[in-house]
This record gives sequence, structure tokens and C-alpha cells, in this order.
Amino acid sequence: MTAALDGSGASTALAGQDAPPPSRHPALLGEAPVRIAAVGVPDFAEVPRTGGAEVTALDWRPPAAGAPDLAWRLAELTGHPAVEAANQEAVSRLLAVRPVWTRVLPAREAIGALDDRTSGRRLLLHAGPPIAWPDMCGPMRAGVIGAALLEGWAETPEAAQHLADSGALEFEPCHHHEAVGPMGGIVSPSMPVLEVEDAASGRRAYSNLNEGAGRCLRYGALGADVMERLRWMGEVLAPALSAALRARGEGVDLRAITAQALQMGDECHSRNTAASALLLRELAAELSTGEHARAVLRFLADNHYWFLNFSMAAAKLATSAAHGVPHSTLVTTFARNGVEVGIRVAGLGDSWFTAPATQVRGLYFAGYGPEDANPDIGDSAITETYGLGGFSLAAAPAITGFVGGTVEEALATSREMARISLARHEAYRLPALGGVGAPVGIDVRAVLDTGIAPVVTTGISHRKPGIGQIGAGLTHAPLECFRKALAATEVPPFATGFAGALADPAGGVGAGSAGGAGAGSAGGARAGSAAATAVGRATGPSADLPSDTSAGPARGTGADSAAGRDTGPSPDLPSDTSTGPAMSTGADSATDTAVGAAKRTGTEAATGPSAGSATRTSTGSAPGSAR
Amino acid sequence: MTAALDGSGASTALAGQDAPPPSRHPALLGEAPVRIAAVGVPDFAEVPRTGGAEVTALDWRPPAAGAPDLAWRLAELTGHPAVEAANQEAVSRLLAVRPVWTRVLPAREAIGALDDRTSGRRLLLHAGPPIAWPDMCGPMRAGVIGAALLEGWAETPEAAQHLADSGALEFEPCHHHEAVGPMGGIVSPSMPVLEVEDAASGRRAYSNLNEGAGRCLRYGALGADVMERLRWMGEVLAPALSAALRARGEGVDLRAITAQALQMGDECHSRNTAASALLLRELAAELSTGEHARAVLRFLADNHYWFLNFSMAAAKLATSAAHGVPHSTLVTTFARNGVEVGIRVAGLGDSWFTAPATQVRGLYFAGYGPEDANPDIGDSAITETYGLGGFSLAAAPAITGFVGGTVEEALATSREMARISLARHEAYRLPALGGVGAPVGIDVRAVLDTGIAPVVTTGISHRKPGIGQIGAGLTHAPLECFRKALAATEVPPFATGFAGALADPAGGVGAGSAGGAGAGSAGGARAGSAAATAVGRATGPSADLPSDTSAGPARGTGADSAAGRDTGPSPDLPSDTSTGPAMSTGADSATDTAVGAAKRTGTEAATGPSAGSATRTSTGSAPGSAR
Repeated sequence: MTAALDGSGASTALAGQDAPPPSRHPALLGEAPVRIAAVGVPDFAEVPRTGGAEVTALDWRPPAAGAPDLAWRLAELTGHPAVEAANQEAVSRLLAVRPVWTRVLPAREAIGALDDRTSGRRLLLHAGPPIAWPDMCGPMRAGVIGAALLEGWAETPEAAQHLADSGALEFEPCHHHEAVGPMGGIVSPSMPVLEVEDAASGRRAYSNLNEGAGRCLRYGALGADVMERLRWMGEVLAPALSAALRARGEGVDLRAITAQALQMGDECHSRNTAASALLLRELAAELSTGEHARAVLRFLADNHYWFLNFSMAAAKLATSAAHGVPHSTLVTTFARNGVEVGIRVAGLGDSWFTAPATQVRGLYFAGYGPEDANPDIGDSAITETYGLGGFSLAAAPAITGFVGGTVEEALATSREMARISLARHEAYRLPALGGVGAPVGIDVRAVLDTGIAPVVTTGISHRKPGIGQIGAGLTHAPLECFRKALAATEVPPFATGFAGALADPAGGVGAGSAGGAGAGSAGGARAGSAAATAVGRATGPSADLPSDTSAGPARGTGADSAAGRDTGPSPDLPSDTSTGPAMSTGADSATDTAVGAAKRTGTEAATGPSAGSATRTSTGSAPGSAR
Repeated sequence: MTAALDGSGASTALAGQDAPPPSRHPALLGEAPVRIAAVGVPDFAEVPRTGGAEVTALDWRPPAAGAPDLAWRLAELTGHPAVEAANQEAVSRLLAVRPVWTRVLPAREAIGALDDRTSGRRLLLHAGPPIAWPDMCGPMRAGVIGAALLEGWAETPEAAQHLADSGALEFEPCHHHEAVGPMGGIVSPSMPVLEVEDAASGRRAYSNLNEGAGRCLRYGALGADVMERLRWMGEVLAPALSAALRARGEGVDLRAITAQALQMGDECHSRNTAASALLLRELAAELSTGEHARAVLRFLADNHYWFLNFSMAAAKLATSAAHGVPHSTLVTTFARNGVEVGIRVAGLGDSWFTAPATQVRGLYFAGYGPEDANPDIGDSAITETYGLGGFSLAAAPAITGFVGGTVEEALATSREMARISLARHEAYRLPALGGVGAPVGIDVRAVLDTGIAPVVTTGISHRKPGIGQIGAGLTHAPLECFRKALAATEVPPFATGFAGALADPAGGVGAGSAGGAGAGSAGGARAGSAAATAVGRATGPSADLPSDTSAGPARGTGADSAAGRDTGPSPDLPSDTSTGPAMSTGADSATDTAVGAAKRTGTEAATGPSAGSATRTSTGSAPGSAR
């Protein structure tokens, strides 16, 4: 079926121009087998089907969810040389980061705003985009109460709540301070944080330490057991880790551990079993010399999520390095506070683009169900912006049951995420997909072009404060965040001065030629035709469909991408697993995509940002004036 | 192509009896597409090919390598109720073992024969089948010299060699003392050994401790560094481990660690990275209290092969439990001394069945090549008899490059080994094959019926003493071992008294009916026709071909098995990865195979030991008098 979408046959049938003459169409339909892919409105499939053709209806969705103004903006930004260059720069910066765990220290010593010794502020950091105390969800409120108790600001939970109600506490996102925290993500001044550093740039990022499984403050659990563990972590665990790191004499290379863990069944968000064991192994010898060595090592040995906060801090470090590149559409933050999901984009400064938090589809502990679940919460989705978590789900077949789903679905998820990603990570590789690099660097344009929302693997908190984790599963970032980000993205001026013509939305739908150097775009063209029927003959396996082994972002443009998305790879297609690791190309080359230019036609023009990802010869002319 | 081999079409064409009348053949050849599989002698393919048919020549090999007497013996043993019952008993015993690491102690305290305090003997244990000093290969001789130095029996390597030359040292296989040692496998009285125990039976097995990578005695390296490490292992490491185990208060469940490690990229023979980290994690807290904790934990953290010897001891414990079941054809030992490979079989007592050691196909360290390599050596192939190593190669895509090969070949290897195995392990599962159990329990009959030799992943020693490891790779057990074992296997008497007729080989080839209750056998029939041409129409995907998800041994019988073996699974066949772990059946049900009976025809009779593995309706009659 996908084969029907290849090459000039399809575009000819649609556009009726160039290459084979129109007179060929009746002959095509008269020969068997004729296979047709109908894209978009389901009724479009019925006409050829009643004519005897084999028709597959594709669940294609128009770009930017069909909003004409946004679709036009998307068209303008797709293939735009300034945006392409900016994204290449941003993702290169992200990939260049080498996260090394260097220190463990109290948050007040690591994060200036939390230094209550001088400021007198009672500031707490929290997960996700900004939110005020009255708006916080149950598990985050529990985190605030626990933190106030830990800091000695209140003696009882009731007193802590009263303190918060009185307005005496301040709240800011972790992300505003180069920090990240899973679930509620509450970080208070005395809590220990881990520091990761990129030696080349001197850049640093932070996360709190993972409490383990069971009843944890981050999930909104409260009680003497929770508070006792938090105190022990500050008084015993953190000093032991700090001393061990000093004794080791050098930091711990988190990139190396992450790369290994992906070969060992982890996706480094919702499964950290291997990475946690490897991290323990790294520091076990040095930890053994401490006074509380046995308790510390027992705690670490029993905590299979220990690495999560390291994974998050590393991801924060890398994505922060990509932030601030003008015109880049790379997503540098994806975080949830339990009420809203927010993203930030490399070229859009400090703005958050938010939408209501989603429900998580997953499995629940005995006695709990979806009605008990808090919506999606936590900064841990930063791992997805770094190519881990759901983007590397193919690496973690063992958690497919845990988060609900099959191994095949896990592979398909990683393939799908590649279609909205700018690059593949050269060190983080997916063994089940033949060693191809993890898809990394979410592109706002690709999300809206394909309608594919970034996936996230995550835990599920009870909606009420004080209870804790009740399950785990999968969810997706709301497309609304991306639509808002797109709306805020200005189209950079073109070097050749044709920007004026491009900025005119009236030239849009079916205009035949919007001209404009470097502005070739499938997105805009697709918005112009809300549905199309592609006709072609079955020609056997199509070798030029998007493959995971292609160096560039594996997202197709136009109808082809819709086909690839909804039907999955054909068994005849080149398989991910048939290529060894040596055949995968590194991330550096992955960003080396063609920045071409194509003249748009009314319905189809398919010169995407990557020559490797375009599956069809453009029917438009390539003026070649882009550079 | 495999589809051409299904059902009655093939056997009809061959035997010309039953079902569709012979007159149908010309019509078949007159229709397109006609696809023919020619099995055996390549020239057989030419006749139909010149007639215009699409012919695939299969590299089919006759059972028992074409030796008529052995083929007849194989036919008698295949499907024999006493053998089937014995194998079910043996593999059930194997699978019931729960290996737990309980102690670390000097070999002289664990193994009675090594107690030189009372015997005055200078006995050393070695890998593989029995071998005398003058016959030993270079790396094993180096091990002997190192052990003599370690025990203080000699002051210099020259003196140690002189001592051995003088006949003052005794040598016995590790396997004769419930012990195993990798590579040279030399175990001397003062060396520490680890003990694994099966609580239910009280059974115990032993292995020496792993020295790590680099220059090691087990690979035949000699020198001050090697000796210093060995002494440290006895004086510091072993007491530390012993104390930690006591402090822990309970043993370490090696079955649980193995099961996890298979989900984390290990096959627990040539890759033990995950298992070693998990084992370190288990004992890190208790190890931290010791005087030399830092050095011990550093050694363990740096030794990615640490778990190998535990894997071997667990495998030895399990296979020993299966040994001694009369009439069982299950392989309980597979070991190499660097000169010979030997196997032992559950129903054949203490006899070794040997053949010259093979060369290992693999990758070499820089500066070395096949001409430097010692032939296959070590007791570590015991892991393959336990379903690990090469049998679980699908679990370890990361080592495919290391041992030479692709990920696809690794998957195919595990599938192929399932065809010579009696069961699947209920706890050891292969994530890349949809969570199906590791194939476990090598059946001598299946090896000879299919011609598939058991694979082994292994390290490569330099042939000269004193150098050490120079590479790693894959090799196979020589079929000669299995032929000798088969020749030594007596056919059990049949309950109904028809054994006399069966024991007469003259009734063999093309006899049409050899009768005999319970003696239905494809093997004998296949031996009678050294080659056959199977004709059938392509009928699309065949759903009843052997699948990894079938509960029983996935080896087919007759021509079908040859097709499956040599062409690999068709992409249209049910895929391993399409079935989740929940669909795999446990090892217990895997041995619950049908013990049927079929009347043999001249060329084809396909009632195998497993209803699930036979892909064709028998053309013979089933007298049904077997029980």
C-alpha cells in the first residue's frame, strides 16, 4: 500500500502536471492490481473503491490541525533557510554537551534563588510551567507541605498549609533555575541536589535526589516515613555521595552510562534499572569508605529509579545549551505541573506555551484506576526532549507491559518520534532498531506538520495529596502547546528580499506558485488541500521510504508521511534490524540536512528539510536560489 | 518458498499415494507459478528447473550424517515412549533447579578430592574431558604451571614444568567433581571457589572465581601480575565475599539475576555486563563493611565477566540434576579441554563422547589472527547446555559485533537452537524474540536429526602458554560427539513386545511398513531417501510452520525441517516479536509433547515427538497401539 505512494505516479494523479500524461490514468485503473491510498476524509475512498480498486483510507490529518493561518505560518517556516540553520545550530549544541556528574550539595548552595541564608525568602521550586499555590494539584500541594516541614517552616501539615495559604511561600519553576524535579518536583533550600556539568562550556544543571520507590514526596505521599527518608537523604546520603565523588577525583560520565543503559533495556525515564546499577558500580568502591557505607549502598541498591534524576539533569543540561538560538523551532523544555503542560522553544526566549495537562494511559496498582489519577505531572519529560524516555521506547521492551502496550508498539513509537525529531543521537543507540541513534530534538514544525504529538513515559500520582504513586503509563504532549508556539514564531526575513510575498497569506491555497527562495514547503501545500487521493500502481517494495537508518530526520512530508505514520512500515521495507550499528550514521551527520528550495504547487510539493526523508520527487521546480 | 513444502502436496508428489491422484502432477507443472524445493543433492533441482519451474535447492543433510546404522538407531529412538518420558523427566529436573550462591571457600574445603591436607595428592582439576599432561594444549599447561606456583609446589615456571613432566601431578576434569572452570579451568586446592546450591535437593556445584579481563591464568597468561592477582583473590577477595555473604544472611538468587540480565543485553556466557553489575549491587552494602572494601568493590566494578563463573556453576548445578536418567538423550555436559570436545548424556552414565576441538570463528585483538588461536577450550559451554550463551544469543545484540555477526544472525541462532532443544526456560526469556523462553536441554537425537550443531560463544586463547586471550567468537560442538553418543545409546525395550521387528535394520529403506508400536519416526524414513524433491504450489503464508511460540521443541522432521533450517523464517510467517511474553508457554508444558506412533512410508513419515513441530499430515497410518 505504501508502495502506491511512491514517485511520480502519485503526484501526477493529484496534480495532473509534469511527467506522464493524463491519458495514462484510465489505463492504470484498467490494469490489475490497482491500489489506491485515500488520504483524509474517509468518503474520498469510496469512489475508487466502488470502481473495483483496492483502497486504503489513511488517517491523515491536515497540518497545524487545519487552522489556515497557522498552516500558512508553518508553510513559511518549513524549509526556511534561517530556521533550518538555526535548528542545525541548536541541535548541534544539544548533541555536543557531555554531561558529567560532578557534585552533590544543598540546593541553597547550588541555586542562588534558594539561598535563604541571605535572601530571607521562603522559595520553593516546582515542576512544570509557573503555577500559583491556589491552582496547584494535590500531589504538588503535598510536596509543598512536606518541604515546609523539612525546612522547619511549619511543625504540622496543617500549619504548613496555612503558611502556604497565607502567601508566605514563593514558588517558581525548577526550569527557571537550570533545575528539574520529577513529578511534583518540589525543591527546597536544604534538599540536596546533584550537579551535572558540561566541561567544554562550564554549563551546569541540577536535580534533586531520587527517593526510591513506594511512598515518596515527589508522588505526593506524606507521613513520618517520607519525612524520615528525606532527612536521611540530606544528612547521610548526600554527604556520603559528595565524599565519594571527591575521593573518586573525577566526575561520572553520564553520557557513557546512558549509552550503555540503552543497550541494557532502559529508556532512562520510566526504566532506569540498568543505569542505576551501573551508576552504583561506578561509585561503590569510594562509597565503601564512609561511615554509613552499608546503609547508603543498600539504599542505592534498592532504588531502581536512582538514575532518573541524573538522566533528567543531563537532559536539562543539553537542552539548555540549545536554548536561545534565534529562529530555532527546537523544543528545549517539555514539563508538566499537574494542571498544565508547557513547552519552551529554543528561538522563543523564556515564554511558556501551555495547555491543560493530559490524562495518562497506563496500568494502575491494585485498588486504583483512572478516576484516581492526577493528570500528567513532572519535569521528567525533559528526558523526551533529549531523545530518551518515550523516544527511546524501543530500547526498553521490558516496560511495554508496565506502561501498557506491546513490543511492536514500542518499536513503532520510536520510529514515529523520529519523524518529529531533528537528529539522531550518535551515542544513544537503540539495539532493537539495529543500533540506530535515538531520535533527538523535537521540532515544533514537524509536530504540527505531521500531527504527531511527542510521547512521554511517566508515573501516575494519586490526585489527592498524601497518597503517592498509583501507576505508570504513556501520554502525549498536547498539540495546543505547539500551536501556540507556532503562533508566536515570527518568520525570519529572507536574504533575497522575497519575504514580502511569502508573508501574504492571501497567496495561499492552491496558488500554484508562491515563489520565494528557500521557502519550498509541503506543509503549506497540504493545508491547501484538506484531503487528496493518491493513485499509483503497486510497484513492490519501495526502497526510498523513510527508514530509521537514514541520517536525517525521518519525517516525510505530504501524503507520504501520513501513510507512513498510520500504517507502519511494510514488512517488505528495509528493516531496522537488518542494519548493524556500524551502518547507522552519527548525530553530527544527522543534522547535515539539505536546505533546499522548491516552488510550491497547488497540492503537492515535497522538498522537505532532508533529502533522505522526502519520498517523492518534487513536482515543483527548484529555483536553487536559496543559497 | 517454504510454503511449497506444506501439507499433502509435497508428500503426494514424492510418494504418489493417498489423497490427490497422480494425474494431478502434470496439471501442477502446467500452471504458474509452480515453485519447487529440491532437497539434498543439488543436481535433483535441475530436472524441474529445466522444465520451467522455480526451484529452490535446499542444503538438506540426511540424519546422522547419512550413516545408515546410526540413522536406523535414530529412527528407533525418535518418538520412543521410554526416551520421550526420560527426556521429559530429565529436562523437568533441570528446570526445577533454583541456583543460589551460598558460599565462597577454598577448593580443598569444597571438593573432597582436592583436600591435600589429608590425601597428600597434588591434584589439579582442568576444563573439558579427561586429558593427560603430555597432551595438554599451551594455555592449559600455563594454567598448570601457574597453579603449581600458587600452591608452592614449585618456585619457578621451569620447576613447575619439570614437576609436571615427572608425573608428580595428577589431573582430573572439573566436571568429575561437580565443578566447572572457564578456559583452561585449572582449579588447585588453595584457590577459592564459589558454591551454588539448590535448596530443594541440597545439590551443590562449584566454580573458581573470575580473574577479570586482560592477562588471566585461565587464558594461559603467566607472570608476576597474574600470580599477584591470584594470591589477592585467595587472601583478600574470597574472605571478603565470604564475610559479606554471611552478613547478608541469605544466599543470592542467581536465577533471578540471570533472568534479569537476559533482559539487559547479556547472554550470560560471553556477555556478563548486566549480570555482573546486578550481582555487585546485591552484595555492595555487605561488602562495604570489610577491611579491604574499597579494593574489593573496585575489582568487582571493573570485572565485567565477574558473573560468568556464577553462570557456569548454576548451569552445572542444573544439568547435573538432569544427569543419570536412564534412556534420556539430554546433553548434560558440553566441555572442551583445548584438544578435544566432549559431551556427556543424561542416560549414558559417566562416559565422555569426544571429538577434536574446533577452531573458533571470531574477532581477534590487534596483532593476532586465527593462526595464533588455540582450538576451542573451557567448561564455559555448560552455559549453552543451560539455554544461555549461544542459545540465548538473541538476548545480546551488543555482542554480535564482538563475536562476529549481525543482529539478524543472532536472532536466527536462538531460533535454530530451539530446534535441537527439549524445552524453553520459563524464567529465562528473550526480549528480542517477543519474550519467548530460552531454548534449553540439548537433545542428541535432534542434533543428529537436523544436523544442527550446538553453538557456543567463547573467548579465544593464544595457542602458546603464557600469553592469554587474543579474541572471542563463535563455534559449534562437533557432530562427531553426538554420533558417538548415539552409537552408545541402547534402544529401550517396548512395552508391547514389538521391539524385535523394529530392531531389524533390513526392514528400513522404502519398506513401506516397518510397523512397531510407538516407533513412528521421520528420521529413519529420511535416512532411506538421501534426497527428495518436494513439489507443491505456493499457497501463501503457512501458519503451521514451526514457530518460536510453540510450546514444544521447535524442530520439524523430514524435509520441512530442512527447509526451515536453511532458509530461515519467511517474513510472512508469524513473528517471534508479535507475541508478548504472556503468550509464551512455560518450560513445563514444553515437555508435554505427544508421543504418537505412525506407520512409516518409503519416503515420508512425519509424526515427530511434538505435534506442534510437525508441519505436515503424516501419509502413514497411525496404528495407535503405542500406549
